[in-house]
Amino acid sequence: MGVVSGDIAALFSSPYLSSPFQPDLSDPIVAKAAALRDAFAVDAAARDQLGGRPVDQVRLLKESGLLIAAIPTQYGGTGASWLSVLRAVREIAHTDGSLAHLFGYHHLPQHNVLSRATPEQQQRLLSAAVRDQWLWSNSGNALSKTSSARRAPDDQGWLISGFRPFSSGSHVADVIMVSWENALGHRVSGLVPADRAGIVIEDDWDGIGQRQTGSGTVTFKDVRVDDDELLGRADDPLTPYASLVSLLQQSVLLNVFLGSAQGALDEGRAYTATRSRPWIHSGVDRHVDDPWIKRKYGELSIRVLAAIELADQAAHSLDAIYPDGPALTQERRGQAAIDIATANLYAGETGLAVSNDIFEVMGARSATVANGFDRFWRNVRTHTLHNPAEYKKRAVGNWVLGGGHPVPAPYR
Amino acid sequence: MGVVSGDIAALFSSPYLSSPFQPDLSDPIVAKAAALRDAFAVDAAARDQLGGRPVDQVRLLKESGLLIAAIPTQYGGTGASWLSVLRAVREIAHTDGSLAHLFGYHHLPQHNVLSRATPEQQQRLLSAAVRDQWLWSNSGNALSKTSSARRAPDDQGWLISGFRPFSSGSHVADVIMVSWENALGHRVSGLVPADRAGIVIEDDWDGIGQRQTGSGTVTFKDVRVDDDELLGRADDPLTPYASLVSLLQQSVLLNVFLGSAQGALDEGRAYTATRSRPWIHSGVDRHVDDPWIKRKYGELSIRVLAAIELADQAAHSLDAIYPDGPALTQERRGQAAIDIATANLYAGETGLAVSNDIFEVMGARSATVANGFDRFWRNVRTHTLHNPAEYKKRAVGNWVLGGGHPVPAPYR
Amino acid sequence: MGVVSGDIAALFSSPYLSSPFQPDLSDPIVAKAAALRDAFAVDAAARDQLGGRPVDQVRLLKESGLLIAAIPTQYGGTGASWLSVLRAVREIAHTDGSLAHLFGYHHLPQHNVLSRATPEQQQRLLSAAVRDQWLWSNSGNALSKTSSARRAPDDQGWLISGFRPFSSGSHVADVIMVSWENALGHRVSGLVPADRAGIVIEDDWDGIGQRQTGSGTVTFKDVRVDDDELLGRADDPLTPYASLVSLLQQSVLLNVFLGSAQGALDEGRAYTATRSRPWIHSGVDRHVDDPWIKRKYGELSIRVLAAIELADQAAHSLDAIYPDGPALTQERRGQAAIDIATANLYAGETGLAVSNDIFEVMGARSATVANGFDRFWRNVRTHTLHNPAEYKKRAVGNWVLGGGHPVPAPYR
Amino acid sequence: MGVVSGDIAALFSSPYLSSPFQPDLSDPIVAKAAALRDAFAVDAAARDQLGGRPVDQVRLLKESGLLIAAIPTQYGGTGASWLSVLRAVREIAHTDGSLAHLFGYHHLPQHNVLSRATPEQQQRLLSAAVRDQWLWSNSGNALSKTSSARRAPDDQGWLISGFRPFSSGSHVADVIMVSWENALGHRVSGLVPADRAGIVIEDDWDGIGQRQTGSGTVTFKDVRVDDDELLGRADDPLTPYASLVSLLQQSVLLNVFLGSAQGALDEGRAYTATRSRPWIHSGVDRHVDDPWIKRKYGELSIRVLAAIELADQAAHSLDAIYPDGPALTQERRGQAAIDIATANLYAGETGLAVSNDIFEVMGARSATVANGFDRFWRNVRTHTLHNPAEYKKRAVGNWVLGGGHPVPAPYR
Repeated sequence: MGVVSGDIAALFSSPYLSSPFQPDLSDPIVAKAAALRDAFAVDAAARDQLGGRPVDQVRLLKESGLLIAAIPTQYGGTGASWLSVLRAVREIAHTDGSLAHLFGYHHLPQHNVLSRATPEQQQRLLSAAVRDQWLWSNSGNALSKTSSARRAPDDQGWLISGFRPFSSGSHVADVIMVSWENALGHRVSGLVPADRAGIVIEDDWDGIGQRQTGSGTVTFKDVRVDDDELLGRADDPLTPYASLVSLLQQSVLLNVFLGSAQGALDEGRAYTATRSRPWIHSGVDRHVDDPWIKRKYGELSIRVLAAIELADQAAHSLDAIYPDGPALTQERRGQAAIDIATANLYAGETGLAVSNDIFEVMGARSATVANGFDRFWRNVRTHTLHNPAEYKKRAVGNWVLGGGHPVPAPYR
Repeated sequence: MGVVSGDIAALFSSPYLSSPFQPDLSDPIVAKAAALRDAFAVDAAARDQLGGRPVDQVRLLKESGLLIAAIPTQYGGTGASWLSVLRAVREIAHTDGSLAHLFGYHHLPQHNVLSRATPEQQQRLLSAAVRDQWLWSNSGNALSKTSSARRAPDDQGWLISGFRPFSSGSHVADVIMVSWENALGHRVSGLVPADRAGIVIEDDWDGIGQRQTGSGTVTFKDVRVDDDELLGRADDPLTPYASLVSLLQQSVLLNVFLGSAQGALDEGRAYTATRSRPWIHSGVDRHVDDPWIKRKYGELSIRVLAAIELADQAAHSLDAIYPDGPALTQERRGQAAIDIATANLYAGETGLAVSNDIFEVMGARSATVANGFDRFWRNVRTHTLHNPAEYKKRAVGNWVLGGGHPVPAPYR
Repeated sequence: MGVVSGDIAALFSSPYLSSPFQPDLSDPIVAKAAALRDAFAVDAAARDQLGGRPVDQVRLLKESGLLIAAIPTQYGGTGASWLSVLRAVREIAHTDGSLAHLFGYHHLPQHNVLSRATPEQQQRLLSAAVRDQWLWSNSGNALSKTSSARRAPDDQGWLISGFRPFSSGSHVADVIMVSWENALGHRVSGLVPADRAGIVIEDDWDGIGQRQTGSGTVTFKDVRVDDDELLGRADDPLTPYASLVSLLQQSVLLNVFLGSAQGALDEGRAYTATRSRPWIHSGVDRHVDDPWIKRKYGELSIRVLAAIELADQAAHSLDAIYPDGPALTQERRGQAAIDIATANLYAGETGLAVSNDIFEVMGARSATVANGFDRFWRNVRTHTLHNPAEYKKRAVGNWVLGGGHPVPAPYR
Repeated sequence: MGVVSGDIAALFSSPYLSSPFQPDLSDPIVAKAAALRDAFAVDAAARDQLGGRPVDQVRLLKESGLLIAAIPTQYGGTGASWLSVLRAVREIAHTDGSLAHLFGYHHLPQHNVLSRATPEQQQRLLSAAVRDQWLWSNSGNALSKTSSARRAPDDQGWLISGFRPFSSGSHVADVIMVSWENALGHRVSGLVPADRAGIVIEDDWDGIGQRQTGSGTVTFKDVRVDDDELLGRADDPLTPYASLVSLLQQSVLLNVFLGSAQGALDEGRAYTATRSRPWIHSGVDRHVDDPWIKRKYGELSIRVLAAIELADQAAHSLDAIYPDGPALTQERRGQAAIDIATANLYAGETGLAVSNDIFEVMGARSATVANGFDRFWRNVRTHTLHNPAEYKKRAVGNWVLGGGHPVPAPYR
């Protein structure tokens, strides 16, 4: 009647350690992420309620060394593969979608530096990032053209005004990539310290999920961006290599979805095995012996396993083309785009399904604010909206029907 | 670009008034519920965040006269049909699942009085209920045998001790039906004023949804229940008529699910039509012109329409047998049980699907705490757990396979 | 072990008589259809293999009197409601989708006569139809403009040449409504005897389902259509009333889908209860005692019950507007169009799901050509293609989003 | 309007060659299978109608050398990996589920020889198999204990009588593994030439799919099985190694399901791109430009891609443990069993979904017997019944919930 033997209780003492879906801890990047996952788990549900700034967790991130994982070794970084980095995102998302998001998005402006900045800028910025363990963020949502710039009086920089919504991570970051449209409507970006004068973090993020991502508004009040802080020029064409930032974003998102699904499944199975009571009309002594409980866990697990395979495959595809650098062709980018769209769609649907269905096999007493299991659904539901599943499916279908790969653009 | 013409804006100025799924306002019970729905809508999202006690809303409920809708006319009540009462539950749930729940569950102990009390008790209690506009509740969750009684020293009543979880409505009710198990393990119930000495409302409800239902613990500290407050005797057999309380509970639940689905759909369409922006790669000027937006609204609407038909059919089935009273046979009860299980399962799945999917057609900016659209999912997700879908399906399947109707019991 | 007691065996001796979803046999139209259903069941699977012409079954249809069910009483017909007629279609489809289709489509040209012909033509044609028990059909698929006409030398009629595919029923009908496009591309139709010189039934129907509908090509070799055989004029506007032929077609289709779902479910449950063996690892003695068998039958039955409610509602909607006749407004037609689109989509999805899933609960030995259970899937799969679900959903969604009712046109 | 440009027509001139899901043709086993696939495609639809014996195709199989692919090199075989062999099964199933089945099941009795026979038997039988390019089959369905044996008068063998259903391949095989139960109810098996006296192939296979597999009854009329033809002894325990025959069977099945899904998708896309006409109300010139057509192909492709990943993973798992031979532990077998159950369930659901849904995007004219596209659904529907999805899910769920790996047994 809900009471479990010592063995089972021990087995489930940590939802993650007992999980049948173990990460590859032989990869030091993944191992560090797993350690963070366990540290973040202590108060993940409580922090989800609070929202705001995960200051302690960002400190742990910095101490872990994960923030320099993707920076090439020539600048002092770890030079890890995207597979490692994205698996680290996934691992953190097992318990904390917000931190996984912040850690993942941290890599987007880094790629902008690698793909658009001058060699001098790359040397300067990436070395400093390694030295000072920068957390990177951006404030330049592509769907909101709500900031602009005028030339600074000294003609050596720009003064930015306006605002930008969905500025994830700006509330805890060391550097922010800010963006605006120039007079021709072209997008311009620059990387500045987060404490640059005139940057106002509005702290108005009110999402139902991803509550510690600080994805609210940043207001710009004549924010100075020096010319040598600009990343590329407004009339630079969008090269296949530069456009990988979209695929990185999609990759981060999908691993947050997938990690959330895994976390919901792991926490769910621990709850079901140790705390759920058999249904009044079930005729079984243990909830886990009700055939439909096994079936449901089987269904959810099979989806998760498929999502893991697709996510790893997508990361491999990214690793395969990333070294091409500026020589990357649209054709080679295209295959990775399809693999990432596939994995993204699949992970999103899996995240929604698992985080919704898991309650059915845990039962009525599981659905409390204190348990906080609903954060998985709220996180995935919030995050998947930045990326309509419909258009992922159409992109894959278009390719299958001979219509070619996605044309590089934001969100695809 | 999200801007709408005056006509469309007016059309959607109230999500409910413009809904294509209009209730039958020629029914005065339903019309009153629709008025309450609009009154509750003003701060439903904010109250969902607060939880606690919906005092003003209970006052409005009393003023509406709806609390006596189901009481037979011979006691001064309205004598409304279950179809009317359940449609009223549904209507309120369009915006406020908690109030719909409180109003719906209010009828369960009333049925216990009608089916188990003596004629004298019926006359006394129901007349008082009409006179004083009682809100009824109960504290006797069937799955938790955690309260007991000893004979009072004067031998004219009982002293109850222990506690009972999931005591919805006890925090705002006028009367509470309390239950305990006697020495033989049989369930005994009595109806007492909510302010009876020794009743402690713990205010510990922590559900992720249905946040103002006060479905927490009631502790009993030698709570006196007089013999003439007992409803029936512990060794009364569970007659088909008395067991209708399970079907009433299932009926309330299903109409909360369905009303939540309708509310999510109505609020969603108003948001989509007036505030959503077309997707960056859609090629359409208005979000509603994207073919997949039409398709998705079609899909969700068709499910809702089917759920409405099944819910109305189930209410008709209940109305058809209710007048049988104590003469009700298990066979006649059985067909209603199947219809209600069918409608319950369908409404629950519809509620979950609509409240999850609606975000996809509203878009990223809809998912804020201020909008509060996630309360629909949290409400249905919380509430459906008290009633596993698996067992509803098995009950229907068993009947279809010639195994007969459900045997009357709690939850079926 | 698959052996059943006498009681159970008797219960399932007829899949239809024992069905929990009994038709309303107090309606004489439905009762006649149920009798035909049982007569057709004897060799339905064998005739599905044969294809060709169901001559004996058409004779039974004529003897039943059902062919004059929808003809108004003023012409000697039964004047039955569409609810009765469509339920009759549904009942026949329980076992024989082809005959249900032929019987249903029989009413389309009748409506063309009522809505487009002159009073004199109506009197002449409908009286003859009653007297001679005509089976009506048509050869004028709206998507294939492959027939034309030239004026006859005597200037009192037309000579039709070309062909038309998907001419269901033409192989066994007494009269055929033939259609062609005139020089302006407008559609013209006339009703002629099936044995009119120059009409060649190609007998080339090769569908994977609906195999006895004869839905192949009719070739026209200078087929004479007299002026007084024309139904209306090419430049008549499509009135809401005349356009009801589309809604009738959709209604027939949906009741074939639904009847097929019911037939698959009824035959499936009889097989499961009497012949299926428990799975080797199930631990139960009877297959019906495996919990998932109950669940699956519950799931399928609940879908079927919802489809029945929607189909009946759609038929009621049609009956509500049909008496408007030529005064019918587009607005009033519109609501019926939505109800019918809803029921059509739902019935189609239900038909596919049930006819596919039923095999899982019957088991490996059920899937033989001799049993012929696959005809349900092949019938629904074939028939649903004439009517993409996507566009039904969009039509409903468009209406829900304030975009108005479907504009009358073929297939909507 | 259904007319396509030369480029598109060329692109789709072979559904398989143009497929975006290309097999690894650098693997000679897969390349041979792809060649057979193209050869079998010529008349696959017609042979599906005929049923019976695919004599010419078996000859091509023998000429290809694929029949010795899995035989270890020490006996003269190719010693290919299970990944290669199972991908070959999958490739053939693109167009011909029956031949894929025959080729796949051919490996089951081979494994029985490797895991249960004496070294002398292995040498004799496998060398002969290589020399004479045997096609192997079996007649010993585990669910039907309908054959028995008595000791031969010379006491050097057995005389088998009775029958066995579902004897796939026996109608075209060179050798048959026959099985019976001994007096204790234990299963005994022997390998005999297909033309052994007393073996009667009843040619009574009447399945709705897999029509050329000859999966009917074999009757035994005093069939002599010499003692040195016995594979193991009746009282041999079922070792983890010997029980791999179940996993091989599951692996063959899943690759038939997956290959069928891929074939349906490939044939569907070719049809859609070159022959389908846009829907009358679509407003597009080409069917492939209708957004929902892209979406649907995306959905189906994503499922297929996930199924491919899981199937390959499952084959890798089998290859990882197969070399353990008799030393294989139940623990190591267990992980492969889970991977194979996962892939099997997923492939089955994918096969059913794709083969059903593909018609919707091809349209009404696609559903002809001549096109034969329905054979994919009939094949998967038939084959999946030998392996209930419910029990696959429960097995995975049981493992996830800490209940351990599946206990080796038939079908798991």
